[in-house]
Amino acid sequence: MATIEDVARFAGLSRTTVSRVINDQPYVSEEKRSRVEDAMKALGYVPNSSARRLRSQKTETIAVLLPRITNPFFNHLIESMEMKASEWGYQVIICQTHDSPQKERDYLELLRKKQVDGIILTSIQNEWEVIEGYLQSGPIVLCNENVEEAQVPVVHVDQAKAAYEATVHLIEQGASEIAFLHGGEDSYVFRHRERGFLKALHERRLPRLEAEVFSSAVDVESGRALFHQIRNNYPSINGVFAGSDEVAAGFIYEAVQAGVKVPEEISVVGFDNQAISMLMKPSITTVEQPVQDMGERCVELLIHQVENGYSLKREEHVFKHRLQARASTTRQSKLVTL
Amino acid sequence: MATIEDVARFAGLSRTTVSRVINDQPYVSEEKRSRVEDAMKALGYVPNSSARRLRSQKTETIAVLLPRITNPFFNHLIESMEMKASEWGYQVIICQTHDSPQKERDYLELLRKKQVDGIILTSIQNEWEVIEGYLQSGPIVLCNENVEEAQVPVVHVDQAKAAYEATVHLIEQGASEIAFLHGGEDSYVFRHRERGFLKALHERRLPRLEAEVFSSAVDVESGRALFHQIRNNYPSINGVFAGSDEVAAGFIYEAVQAGVKVPEEISVVGFDNQAISMLMKPSITTVEQPVQDMGERCVELLIHQVENGYSLKREEHVFKHRLQARASTTRQSKLVTL
Repeated sequence: MATIEDVARFAGLSRTTVSRVINDQPYVSEEKRSRVEDAMKALGYVPNSSARRLRSQKTETIAVLLPRITNPFFNHLIESMEMKASEWGYQVIICQTHDSPQKERDYLELLRKKQVDGIILTSIQNEWEVIEGYLQSGPIVLCNENVEEAQVPVVHVDQAKAAYEATVHLIEQGASEIAFLHGGEDSYVFRHRERGFLKALHERRLPRLEAEVFSSAVDVESGRALFHQIRNNYPSINGVFAGSDEVAAGFIYEAVQAGVKVPEEISVVGFDNQAISMLMKPSITTVEQPVQDMGERCVELLIHQVENGYSLKREEHVFKHRLQARASTTRQSKLVTL
Repeated sequence: MATIEDVARFAGLSRTTVSRVINDQPYVSEEKRSRVEDAMKALGYVPNSSARRLRSQKTETIAVLLPRITNPFFNHLIESMEMKASEWGYQVIICQTHDSPQKERDYLELLRKKQVDGIILTSIQNEWEVIEGYLQSGPIVLCNENVEEAQVPVVHVDQAKAAYEATVHLIEQGASEIAFLHGGEDSYVFRHRERGFLKALHERRLPRLEAEVFSSAVDVESGRALFHQIRNNYPSINGVFAGSDEVAAGFIYEAVQAGVKVPEEISVVGFDNQAISMLMKPSITTVEQPVQDMGERCVELLIHQVENGYSLKREEHVFKHRLQARASTTRQSKLVTL
């Protein structure tokens, strides 16, 4: 009967490399991996160590990748995912990428190394062709990011439509020069929202200046900084579509401190309908996503694939968003409570 | 056949260092790394990764148990823990207990089943004697909760002192009948804060009515509900020590809506110095904990124990809190910005 040493000799590779391939570990080139697999086939070598058998078992763990857990949209999403996973007896590993493509690939290795049964991606830093490779190792569900070419279940709201409606709302409330704040240009969410934003400007024949798009808007602090940047450099801007309620809250906080009237001098729309959007003075007009339903659906789709197998097939689950008008855009300041 | 001990002896280095090199872990100098590799070559030592992993049974995963991830204190804590763990090549499993003793025990089973190398508890729902039993299976670090009898590393601020100072501050600003809001009576944080609260009332000779302690204060929504409960049933209460900034924010939001002046008619102190405490009108007096430092310390202590072994020994790490006075208690409404 062939041994691991025989495989190594046949493949012309070290025992360590063979062992790595057998144990599905990273850092083996595809070329070496296939030489080892060919050698195993040729020699009829069947790895049957207890270690491998143990590892081939299900881990009953799924990983959720997200940019940052301190963002309320993501932590509410995670909470609903974790509760649903827990109903099914699955644990959730939460992995923060902090927008790093390298970290995203490192965490995707969890799937290759069989440390998790499946992965939910709520944000994407690499091109899809990079991520696609990991689908050989286990199922992936996309949440929030809608990558058109992805052959997996995709759960999202129509970000382009939401951005379009938010922008139209700003225009209808009197804004004529509108800033579009976003977290980073690499995200699909950004690309879709930008499309909707531009469509609204185009339809209403408002000019779009390059300077009206601002990146790095991720939290309260960046919202505060962007108020001053915009006020100092683009004083004619009188409407802001912020990427999140936290950014909007930071922006409005500084506006109020500086004596700039919201919405009379500048109107602001947030995103996600977090508690902060209701608590601020003025309260913040925002776009609500059904976070809990989306999180639960993602987990159900993923666990279904883990337990019943999966094929590379696109399957879209589009959830309905809702524009919640509040005082930060409505000039009569009619307060709408939740 | 050479063993890892032989390699360590030959290289004149510790077994831990050799193990780190074999496992490709960080924090080994290039010089030591090459001494280990030379020794391995000289002795013909080939690490068998699967056997090794089985023997050592390390998963390079730690679990963090917390009540709910949507609480900003806990998600900021987790963020710092996750970043520190990631530096060391460890993954973090986040487990929400939702204050359930049963769920807490279920997640503690991860340690018994060797699915994680160690656990950080940021909240405790079971009596310590229950949790103690799991220490046979692996190390536990306590964070936030200070259980006096726990023979493990404990990382926390002095909650009794923080509550005492917050209560004295309310009294000095004119409050004479003070409500104490908390998340649940089973937590050690509650017991310590209550002790500090009562000490302040006693020293300043204020009466303490049983009715002045309110439980189930966990988020913005419960803060809103508690405002009405207190206003309707205990109209003479003119000071509130809330367990979190979110509870304080919900309380203040409803007070302002109802035309009750904060701090003139009722003054409010939050906890944690989250962004919301600065953003609210009026801004919220709060107690700041050094969340990032605490989170990092917990992970360092736990990984040290995972990699170097541990004994049942109490080790206290007390971090300094800080009272941040803002408009919700200071009658002149001097706004202190961050």
